[in-house]
Amino acid sequence: MSDPSALDPVLVRIDETLPDALERLNALLRIPSISTDPAYKAECDRAADWLAADLSSLGLAADKRATAGHPMVMAHGAGPGPHVLFYGHYDVQPVDPLELWDRDPFDPAVEDTPAGKVIRGRGAADDKGQLMTFIEACRAWVAVHGALPVKVSVMLEGEEESGSPSLVPFMRENADELTADLALICDTGMFDRETPAITTMLRGLLGEELVVTGPSKDLHSGMFGGPAMNPIRALSRVLAGLHDAEGRVTLPGFYEGVPEISDEVRAQWEALGFDARAFLGSVGLSQLAGEAGRSALEMLWSRPTCEFNGIGGGYQGDGFKTVLPAQARAKVSFRLVGDQDPLAIRETFRQYVRDTLPPDCSVEFSDHGASPASRMSIDHPAFEQARQALSDEWPRPAAFVGSGGSIPIAGHFKRELGMDAMLIGFGRDDDQIHSPNEKYDLDAFHKGMRSWARVLAAMAQ
Amino acid sequence: MSDPSALDPVLVRIDETLPDALERLNALLRIPSISTDPAYKAECDRAADWLAADLSSLGLAADKRATAGHPMVMAHGAGPGPHVLFYGHYDVQPVDPLELWDRDPFDPAVEDTPAGKVIRGRGAADDKGQLMTFIEACRAWVAVHGALPVKVSVMLEGEEESGSPSLVPFMRENADELTADLALICDTGMFDRETPAITTMLRGLLGEELVVTGPSKDLHSGMFGGPAMNPIRALSRVLAGLHDAEGRVTLPGFYEGVPEISDEVRAQWEALGFDARAFLGSVGLSQLAGEAGRSALEMLWSRPTCEFNGIGGGYQGDGFKTVLPAQARAKVSFRLVGDQDPLAIRETFRQYVRDTLPPDCSVEFSDHGASPASRMSIDHPAFEQARQALSDEWPRPAAFVGSGGSIPIAGHFKRELGMDAMLIGFGRDDDQIHSPNEKYDLDAFHKGMRSWARVLAAMAQ
Repeated sequence: MSDPSALDPVLVRIDETLPDALERLNALLRIPSISTDPAYKAECDRAADWLAADLSSLGLAADKRATAGHPMVMAHGAGPGPHVLFYGHYDVQPVDPLELWDRDPFDPAVEDTPAGKVIRGRGAADDKGQLMTFIEACRAWVAVHGALPVKVSVMLEGEEESGSPSLVPFMRENADELTADLALICDTGMFDRETPAITTMLRGLLGEELVVTGPSKDLHSGMFGGPAMNPIRALSRVLAGLHDAEGRVTLPGFYEGVPEISDEVRAQWEALGFDARAFLGSVGLSQLAGEAGRSALEMLWSRPTCEFNGIGGGYQGDGFKTVLPAQARAKVSFRLVGDQDPLAIRETFRQYVRDTLPPDCSVEFSDHGASPASRMSIDHPAFEQARQALSDEWPRPAAFVGSGGSIPIAGHFKRELGMDAMLIGFGRDDDQIHSPNEKYDLDAFHKGMRSWARVLAAMAQ
Repeated sequence: MSDPSALDPVLVRIDETLPDALERLNALLRIPSISTDPAYKAECDRAADWLAADLSSLGLAADKRATAGHPMVMAHGAGPGPHVLFYGHYDVQPVDPLELWDRDPFDPAVEDTPAGKVIRGRGAADDKGQLMTFIEACRAWVAVHGALPVKVSVMLEGEEESGSPSLVPFMRENADELTADLALICDTGMFDRETPAITTMLRGLLGEELVVTGPSKDLHSGMFGGPAMNPIRALSRVLAGLHDAEGRVTLPGFYEGVPEISDEVRAQWEALGFDARAFLGSVGLSQLAGEAGRSALEMLWSRPTCEFNGIGGGYQGDGFKTVLPAQARAKVSFRLVGDQDPLAIRETFRQYVRDTLPPDCSVEFSDHGASPASRMSIDHPAFEQARQALSDEWPRPAAFVGSGGSIPIAGHFKRELGMDAMLIGFGRDDDQIHSPNEKYDLDAFHKGMRSWARVLAAMAQ
């Protein structure tokens, strides 16, 4: 397997069997495995069965494992060299609003678009299409050589889109079985259409909801306006005070544990030639809204944020109502980097809110998750091997990048199993994951399979 | 009619025929004349017919007049002395949420409560019960003396709860017929349970809605959080900047035309012994939220406000969504006093918003009305006559008060017909107008009729 010439027939096999691979993906996409909706419980089960059977068909020892929620699919295949644990998820997001879809979300098809052919359907990119790139690469290796190039384990989750409640318990109960030399995670994207990426920094996420109560009931603003405290006024003051004029978050100690990126990383990022103007322009904006003096990629990958994800209070219908509302509420999230401590920031945030509210307002908080940032240790030789392998497949060299989003699984692998993770995926910014008309580019699927075949070959050397 | 002894038999008649008056009010309350809902158009018409017939039955020349919307009811009765135009409205608010009512809103009944008997039903206080106090006083005068003590015209509107679109056109088309020596308006309340009130100051109202747009679509806060401007953040800053630390509104020139009350008025208001602690405590508050150094009654009656009546943006459902929303919106209103110019304040407000928003946010405004404050000229002798008459009926002397709310009709009478208005009503703070379980105290109805009998007698002298 360590013979470099072993790779070429595998790539040829992938090219020749693309229609078959596509049909298998479509079969999986037709199963509406929406994990968050109990009405689709049997469909999640069916997707797990389908995957266990598919993995078995290529010679892996695969089975479905019960959890308190939707099942896990586990599979193991023998091989030489390092042992990798591949992670993906077979559950998908709900499809509403259904009327915004141009086709049945669970009747997938290849469509022609101005930017090329796409596989349209719920889960095409997130994550069924991505996880199948890995499985198909394994299938081609086995078909051509009768064996895998490295030792492969596969763990496919059915609750990623509904908070992964069974994931950490499953890891703890099956730690020995799951622990490998390296985890491979396929839930990420390309840097741009031509540049593959290995994600090495993931921001953490702290989610908070606050409900501010002023009067004990909604009041008439004529009868009470003036003397009575308005909770929207109080909440606005709280939110407005969270950023200073330079766009920095004002919470005391917020920037503790936020590292500056090294000159080397900075140079790498600058070399990517990221077009911040085009990035903002694509969503109708023109100015960087984050901390003054930082580049767009820094703002996205290596700087923390405070965002307001929702706000509500009083009368929001048509027309006007002179109500002075009893309550106002907001959903606030913090993207975290480096060694920022989510729980310490939660306490600081809550104390700031309490200190800022007038005495006549009370507040209740709800906890919507707290996960620290992850930084991968790229010392493992697989990172450089994968970077070279991806660079061989795509028009431009692969980049080590950060991710503005949060993928808690990488942190779980590290904390629960002591295992580093390498995040490689072929999603693109316009895949519309979680939205109507989700798609996965056909070339992402095809070259994604070829990429994994190359990465596995490189790791086997 | 100018004989003071003429009053006593009228009051006796009112006492003796209270059950009949109550049955008439119930008949009117059973008509679901919800003006804002087109489904109830025929019911509004039926209420107008009922009132025209009732006014005819007591000898007035009454009829129903078509408008572009719901009809007006007009009636005229001859009499000596001054000519008054009585105004009320026969339409009512919608009744939803219906499940919060303890009885069918249109099946009125007298109920015993710990605070006394109440007439329960939609419109009992706003405004059918109140307008019937005047009509029943006229009925008793006619029944006892065969004539009214003063010349009386009646105008009953059917669109007060839906913005009165036909009112000003009707006034203009019928100016000669409507113009009297004084308008009487019965849509106000008592100062407290024992103290009748003549409302001489009404705050104006400016309503504004703003929709702030940042990105051209909702974004993922992981993929865009940091570089992209968040419109909730921008809106919070706009709203938070509208009040200073002393509770004053910060818009330039906002306090132009805001008069200080005279020492005499201040002394009168202080003599009312308003219990601000109890007022706030009744709605779960403890501190005056308006301008520092002002009393609660000043804040309600003679000081302007800026209130936030509604706010919304992003994800407001259960759980959490890491969305960076495209839009955020707010409904903002200003209560105005003295000579504040609503249109000038609208322009100042809009300019402030534009100046405060970051360059990447645009804003659209909607106009939700602009009416200046009204101050009654209490030089007309009827004010002192009425004050004495009301003081004779109730346990405590009548007070000249302000109103925190806005009753545009008073301003219309002044501007369109050059007519002063005297606002007398017997509503109480706990009548739950516009809310489920609306009621009108039985003693407010009974003593309200007696009060109007006395006021008419006093004006005849």
